Amino acid sequence: MKFKLAFIGFGVVGQGLAEILIEKRGWLKERYDFDYEVVAISDMKLGSVYRKKGLDMEKVMEMVDKDESLNEYPDAVTGMNPIETIKESNADTVIEVTFTDMETGGPALDHVWTALDEGDHVVSTNKGPVVNEVKELLELAQKNNVHYRFEGTVLSGTPAINLAEDTLAGCEISEIKGIVNGTTNYILTKMEEGMEYEEALEKAQELGYAEADPTGDVEGIDAQGKTVILSNTVMGGDLELDDVNREGITDITLEDVKEAKEEGYRWKLIARTKKTADGIEAEVKPEKLPMDHPLAGVMGPTNALNFTTDHLGEVTVVGPGAGKEETGYSLLVDLLAINAALEE
Amino acid sequence: MKFKLAFIGFGVVGQGLAEILIEKRGWLKERYDFDYEVVAISDMKLGSVYRKKGLDMEKVMEMVDKDESLNEYPDAVTGMNPIETIKESNADTVIEVTFTDMETGGPALDHVWTALDEGDHVVSTNKGPVVNEVKELLELAQKNNVHYRFEGTVLSGTPAINLAEDTLAGCEISEIKGIVNGTTNYILTKMEEGMEYEEALEKAQELGYAEADPTGDVEGIDAQGKTVILSNTVMGGDLELDDVNREGITDITLEDVKEAKEEGYRWKLIARTKKTADGIEAEVKPEKLPMDHPLAGVMGPTNALNFTTDHLGEVTVVGPGAGKEETGYSLLVDLLAINAALEE
Repeated sequence: MKFKLAFIGFGVVGQGLAEILIEKRGWLKERYDFDYEVVAISDMKLGSVYRKKGLDMEKVMEMVDKDESLNEYPDAVTGMNPIETIKESNADTVIEVTFTDMETGGPALDHVWTALDEGDHVVSTNKGPVVNEVKELLELAQKNNVHYRFEGTVLSGTPAINLAEDTLAGCEISEIKGIVNGTTNYILTKMEEGMEYEEALEKAQELGYAEADPTGDVEGIDAQGKTVILSNTVMGGDLELDDVNREGITDITLEDVKEAKEEGYRWKLIARTKKTADGIEAEVKPEKLPMDHPLAGVMGPTNALNFTTDHLGEVTVVGPGAGKEETGYSLLVDLLAINAALEE
Repeated sequence: MKFKLAFIGFGVVGQGLAEILIEKRGWLKERYDFDYEVVAISDMKLGSVYRKKGLDMEKVMEMVDKDESLNEYPDAVTGMNPIETIKESNADTVIEVTFTDMETGGPALDHVWTALDEGDHVVSTNKGPVVNEVKELLELAQKNNVHYRFEGTVLSGTPAINLAEDTLAGCEISEIKGIVNGTTNYILTKMEEGMEYEEALEKAQELGYAEADPTGDVEGIDAQGKTVILSNTVMGGDLELDDVNREGITDITLEDVKEAKEEGYRWKLIARTKKTADGIEAEVKPEKLPMDHPLAGVMGPTNALNFTTDHLGEVTVVGPGAGKEETGYSLLVDLLAINAALEE
């Protein structure tokens, strides 16, 4: 079918999706009967544009490359904020890729809520709304007969939530263990090669894996959010951020890493959520894994999830956890899942 | 929705599914709105029974446990062969789990063909029909607006075909490398621990991983069939068995394994299919992998597939490749996918 898309936010991830959509338009139509027009884009920095009949996306990308404001796009409604864009545009599907506070969910939470309330499908890579109100949002989506998907919130486009929900459907998952933060895994990998923590962090920052303020990664806050998401979606729990005990990697020394290596172990920052007699229990903390553990061989910025299931025992998926194209793609796979659901 | 199921074949795999269906009936209804009656079973050894209003599956399992022929099931039509059962029963979905000749596809191929032609959905773990005529069968299914799914033909219930087709939708997959045969991987694992090939094979036979005649596994024929399946489904190729160059593990000596280990390598039987300028090229052969290769750490009877994709780079899935419950489950996940497609 043909989707009318609105990008709410148009930063790295949104542009990552846009590039794929432009490049693969013909193939997506032929292979999946998936077609689209982008009717609106609203971004805090780049400006806002809405055109009922659709935007010329190659022109949009040119303007973005040249640092021209989207408010200058000709013959179009310009300057609408995200909420206005969601409410006033004729989009049937909102791509929510702004930013979010993991404690409150805002402002992404308002965008997702408004879009679902308007009867639009939503695909989003923002963790805040899922961490804070996933049950309510999914109920609203169901009530309005639309879809809300967020594969990219965990492991970017590597199959994670969709893997658990779709290709492991019918299995009961009793535990998920994972390496869900590439920055810390990269740092630990470099430390095993002999680098001090500070040097490894700097290297990660140089490569764009870590931000200028690395707290969210190295203190395990990013992993904590992803653990809440896995707990409250795949595992059916109802946790808040603070319910997940959290310990980062900042106390791990080069000495610890060396010692573990000599003993045949390897330190990894492990996110874990499991079903217990008292409900879902989750934590994020560094663990010393034996070398034959399915997560021990996952090196560099790569991520992985290990599912303990009733029918299959352990199933592990390994793939990228971040990146412009990888996260942009997660939105495409969610759009294709909606397309497949609506096509039957 | 409520499915009317016919089991064509009721050996280990069929019984594996039946046990899951019995155990999870309530949960499947509640969680997925999936309900079922088994209306027919036709098995060469166990007999054949058809009851329009549905069979008491606990009674069926009791009879099987007591070695009573299903032809003795009271108040039912008995003695129909597979084709009669498919044609005459009121089943809307056929679970095809008989046996198959990989060279010709028979007799499973006739069952799948007949069922799709009758307008029934088909789920099957038999490789023969997929190896020989997957394109024709999928065309027939599409023409009759029904589904033909076969997740269990590769990696049992571990997400493999469904992972590539559904959760990696929108990615172009340029290469798949995998460990798709548990028997040979188990033997190579034991050889690395110091066992001679013959001893490791005996051990595999004791544990039920290898058959009395292990040719199909150790000569790579099983892996060859799975490689054709991946080539012709996920990769869009059109190969026959003989198009896949094949070399088994029988020429690998304990000395080779030791030598590789000393050099930091590990022998694995690798199935590989890739897109080239000349089309899809595929082969099965032992390869010496460096220890940091994503498939090097996959030990014992465990299987794995590594996908090279455009948007995500490499994605790897690791899980069981065989087993009564694991393969039985593959049929359930296919049934749930059909259910989800029909529910929208």
